[in-house]
Amino acid sequence: MTAVSPAPRTLTIDLGDRRYPIHIGAGLLSDRARLEAGLPGGPLLVVSNETVAPLYLGRVRAALAGRTLHECVLPDGERHKTLATLERVYDALAAGRVHRDGAVLALGGGVVGDMAGFAAATWQRGIAVVQLPTTLLAQVDSSVGGKTAVNHPAGKNLIGAFHQPSAVIADLDTLATLPDRELRAGLAEVIKYGLVRDADFLAWLEAGLGRLLSRDPEALAEAVERSCRIKAEIVALDERESGPRALLNLGHTFGHAIEAATGFREWLHGEAVAMGLVLAAETSHRLGWLAAADVARVRELVARAGLPARPPRIGLERARELMALDKKVRAGQVRLVLLRRLGEGVVSGDYDAAALEAVLRAEVA
Amino acid sequence: MTAVSPAPRTLTIDLGDRRYPIHIGAGLLSDRARLEAGLPGGPLLVVSNETVAPLYLGRVRAALAGRTLHECVLPDGERHKTLATLERVYDALAAGRVHRDGAVLALGGGVVGDMAGFAAATWQRGIAVVQLPTTLLAQVDSSVGGKTAVNHPAGKNLIGAFHQPSAVIADLDTLATLPDRELRAGLAEVIKYGLVRDADFLAWLEAGLGRLLSRDPEALAEAVERSCRIKAEIVALDERESGPRALLNLGHTFGHAIEAATGFREWLHGEAVAMGLVLAAETSHRLGWLAAADVARVRELVARAGLPARPPRIGLERARELMALDKKVRAGQVRLVLLRRLGEGVVSGDYDAAALEAVLRAEVA
Repeated sequence: MTAVSPAPRTLTIDLGDRRYPIHIGAGLLSDRARLEAGLPGGPLLVVSNETVAPLYLGRVRAALAGRTLHECVLPDGERHKTLATLERVYDALAAGRVHRDGAVLALGGGVVGDMAGFAAATWQRGIAVVQLPTTLLAQVDSSVGGKTAVNHPAGKNLIGAFHQPSAVIADLDTLATLPDRELRAGLAEVIKYGLVRDADFLAWLEAGLGRLLSRDPEALAEAVERSCRIKAEIVALDERESGPRALLNLGHTFGHAIEAATGFREWLHGEAVAMGLVLAAETSHRLGWLAAADVARVRELVARAGLPARPPRIGLERARELMALDKKVRAGQVRLVLLRRLGEGVVSGDYDAAALEAVLRAEVA
Repeated sequence: MTAVSPAPRTLTIDLGDRRYPIHIGAGLLSDRARLEAGLPGGPLLVVSNETVAPLYLGRVRAALAGRTLHECVLPDGERHKTLATLERVYDALAAGRVHRDGAVLALGGGVVGDMAGFAAATWQRGIAVVQLPTTLLAQVDSSVGGKTAVNHPAGKNLIGAFHQPSAVIADLDTLATLPDRELRAGLAEVIKYGLVRDADFLAWLEAGLGRLLSRDPEALAEAVERSCRIKAEIVALDERESGPRALLNLGHTFGHAIEAATGFREWLHGEAVAMGLVLAAETSHRLGWLAAADVARVRELVARAGLPARPPRIGLERARELMALDKKVRAGQVRLVLLRRLGEGVVSGDYDAAALEAVLRAEVA
């Protein structure tokens, strides 16, 4: 990291009386005023995990000194994103007597944010949650937009709720301690935004990938802000994913199948999504929408980001079965997010199934 | 039951684009058109319990012949209203490939309705649910208004969501097989409506209690309709219980404490609520709001309905502790629903705590 920190910036998710700010900047976990602004007056529960808590929970504790603050530290990893782990959060909420005038603070990556958010969504039928994302993936994607969930053995995020946070506070300092593999996984979601919605941003990423991989603070701030801006725009249009929001699932139907097939252990979510981006591009190519050169651009960017280039051989039947559990299924047909061109995604249930089958045969069978 | 059935009647819960009908009448579980009207086209899961399924699941199955219909039969009883039982509903939803174009049908009493409703609220972040209440309590109260939940060891309904059904279909025929004890428990909620909102209805209940206890179909239809009408009005005003809806919790803070203290085994919910109505009346009396004669009227109606007249001796400290878990707590003070007069409830966090303490000392210590 260089010594110069980019100036903090604030976006707004415009959802009427549930609008909320996204603050992006360095040092924000120590910024009491900003933390307090999103919080009601009652007892607080910080939910974090064993990796993040030793690094950053102390900052939050210090910033909120004087408030009643309980802590719930969960094991780290997607395989713990279960009802059983969720029960520990409920137990902590009960023990801490957190009522509807209290709140949850989700300090961690996507798994912590999803579980803490779902606990807040369902504790006493809904209490406030403030998202404090500490990974690139959580800062650009999972902490924003109110999707919360835990996994079911049959598939990812099958149990969940829409529950908007009262604020998202993304402290860019936390990216300094992020393992390279996690940084790269986050870049998969950043690339997704470019592919699905913004060809200029895609070109910016191709040009600036080196700065992002070397963690240039200004480049990271820019990537987080531009990603959040696209997400904010789409979520404001379609909070409950009845329409355009499904675009943000580009790569995710394939990705979730890969994660489930490998037991939520081997592949990071972002790695599986990156693979899904490639498979979506390949399918779009077989449908005649993308040129071979476009697919090559996607593959190259993913490879330069250090993300996996080959999916696991999970088998054709298993892949189909897992994709059929996707939440976008309607009347038995898996709807996919595909690419009309680079920078323009489309949700389709009406594609030629042979194109998908050919891709699955070539890549995962 | 007499041979003459009251004509079906329909109320509407007016919640804008989430408005839905409540149908009340005999034979409705066999009415395919009415069942179908609230259902999307995908796979269905009927959730019921071991007591109700043998009696009524066949009617629903026959009425929906030709539809893809899965079944999930749970153990009967409030003590099974847990995350562990809920997991069985999720498993059935996964096995049945119920997606967002599918629906849950909740066939049973309050426990089934709450659990099936919560499963629907959280499966794939929300799918449709149709409530088919088969107990008086569920028909007049729990099936209407979108509150769903499971219990946590620390207290009742602590884990839940607001999720409105697409329809409530109350088949009065099901009341014919209801055990007397369950019928009486349901009357507790009916009495609640009179006490909190409608002195005329209260007088009607005092006059007509005998007909209700002998299961006169016309009287039951009237009691269900008038109760649902009050509930519909209040829910439309305040869906998420930020204001007047809390009135419908009259007797419930005490009642939940009794249920929790007795492990959700000995007392039926309605029995605990009946006791809570008496304790709320007593507290209101000590505050100088109700005359002794008013309290006597409440006690007499509850006694004539065959509902418990004495709470368990759970102890002052335990009672306080359990009441402090109530979802209406703000800033450490338990807000109570109290009675300004018979027919007019009020939510208060500002009462003289000595009045509550005196009642608890006299009744539960």
